[in-house]
Amino acid sequence: MNKKQLFGHIKSKKSFLCVGLDPDLDKIPKHLLETEDPIFEFNKAIIDATLPYAIAYKPNIAFYESLGIHGWDSLKKTVEYIPQEIFTIADAKRGDIGNTSNKYAEAFFNKMTFDAITLSPYMGYDSVTPFLNHKDKWAILLASTSNIGAMDFQELMIGNSGQKIYEKIIEISSKWGSDQNLMYVVGATRVDTLAQIRKIVPDHFLLIPGVGAQGGDLDLVCKYAMNNFGGLLINSARSIIYADNSVDFAYHAGLAAADLQDKMATAMLKYERW
Amino acid sequence: MNKKQLFGHIKSKKSFLCVGLDPDLDKIPKHLLETEDPIFEFNKAIIDATLPYAIAYKPNIAFYESLGIHGWDSLKKTVEYIPQEIFTIADAKRGDIGNTSNKYAEAFFNKMTFDAITLSPYMGYDSVTPFLNHKDKWAILLASTSNIGAMDFQELMIGNSGQKIYEKIIEISSKWGSDQNLMYVVGATRVDTLAQIRKIVPDHFLLIPGVGAQGGDLDLVCKYAMNNFGGLLINSARSIIYADNSVDFAYHAGLAAADLQDKMATAMLKYERW
Repeated sequence: MNKKQLFGHIKSKKSFLCVGLDPDLDKIPKHLLETEDPIFEFNKAIIDATLPYAIAYKPNIAFYESLGIHGWDSLKKTVEYIPQEIFTIADAKRGDIGNTSNKYAEAFFNKMTFDAITLSPYMGYDSVTPFLNHKDKWAILLASTSNIGAMDFQELMIGNSGQKIYEKIIEISSKWGSDQNLMYVVGATRVDTLAQIRKIVPDHFLLIPGVGAQGGDLDLVCKYAMNNFGGLLINSARSIIYADNSVDFAYHAGLAAADLQDKMATAMLKYERW
Repeated sequence: MNKKQLFGHIKSKKSFLCVGLDPDLDKIPKHLLETEDPIFEFNKAIIDATLPYAIAYKPNIAFYESLGIHGWDSLKKTVEYIPQEIFTIADAKRGDIGNTSNKYAEAFFNKMTFDAITLSPYMGYDSVTPFLNHKDKWAILLASTSNIGAMDFQELMIGNSGQKIYEKIIEISSKWGSDQNLMYVVGATRVDTLAQIRKIVPDHFLLIPGVGAQGGDLDLVCKYAMNNFGGLLINSARSIIYADNSVDFAYHAGLAAADLQDKMATAMLKYERW
């Protein structure tokens, strides 16, 4: 999917909601455990219920990999079930030397049909560019993540540049591709950094985790980071997929997604620049 | 496997050779393609031929993941085929927030029976510690890698500390665990950095890729980085597993491994400190 198409979907759905498909056998409703493929049944119901409100889905690969071969089967079926006009992100956080990154690109872009993959930037240029060579596919680089450990290295200052590591990573890596094939992960818990990041990459999409059903953060994120092409994918996983644990879980997931989409539509009216 | 056991195997085999099991359907001998599971057949023959000389095997997960479900099956069979007293490393370069890293630990330490996994340090403390909570298992953090892109970020200087990013990462992360459950990846192409790294972590094992059949580098690596417990795992993949492409490929892989082990035995005599 290219940037124009992605922006088109955002405008028509008045949403930039990405639903995190992170299914855990210990957390999904018990009645699903009796089905042949509980993970896929769970995802299917969540997708059906949230599809009117979401423009992207992001399975975190760890949740599937931890289930062995069956997990990979559930993942493949899930990606194939998502309609083609919906943006799909493999949250894999991969990154390896060039010939090996080629193999990962093959796994997620060819063997499976993801539109995008998240990558760790630590190994530099040749670990990222193999993913940029695939037409209409996207590399999404970790920049400023929303976990506690993000403080350990990402926030360290580089020399006398006045730049933190994640700012330097965005600045350097943005030249490896363009706003047509590169995005960045920026945690919503760090709203103060968003304006700063927009100075470095005004036109790139940002994938923002860490926004729950709370409208407050969402409004601030849009204020500081929305751009001429929307420029935002906001991910919500647990507050949607585990909104309820009964046989009606999908209905409640749909309500949670609708609520977030409604707040997004409001924020778009308030801050849209197109 | 604990540190004492690993050191025991190094001493008894006079080897610290780790064989990289990175099988590529385009590169393995053609006659194997007619078998039911060419990847496993290839690995099995390589393992049989190199076992007298190797103390560790390291499959890079990308090569299996790119083959979809069949690849995961080949990987699982490969790990199960390797004798229990041999150290196994999942070269996965994973790293995610805490609850997700737990899932990856489950995948590689429980679903499969790897002794160790390589990790990207970028997300910090809570992305690494879930792996350290597994008894006798190891987290191997990327520090200074051997690819061209390593120059992009790993070598940047932190503030006025005089430390490069990878040195800071080693210094900080070494406190998260100990030399009993943490190792570091340090590229052999950067021999000048080894002495410096040994000042920060004198007792930790280093996993060193980038050493081919050339004795020169190996000697320098041992000179600067061998410690009281051996402290080195030197990985070689292509120069062993693709030493030959005929029906006799395994024999030639064995010869290449024997040659490297012989150089290791010589270096151990020269530099051993135990």
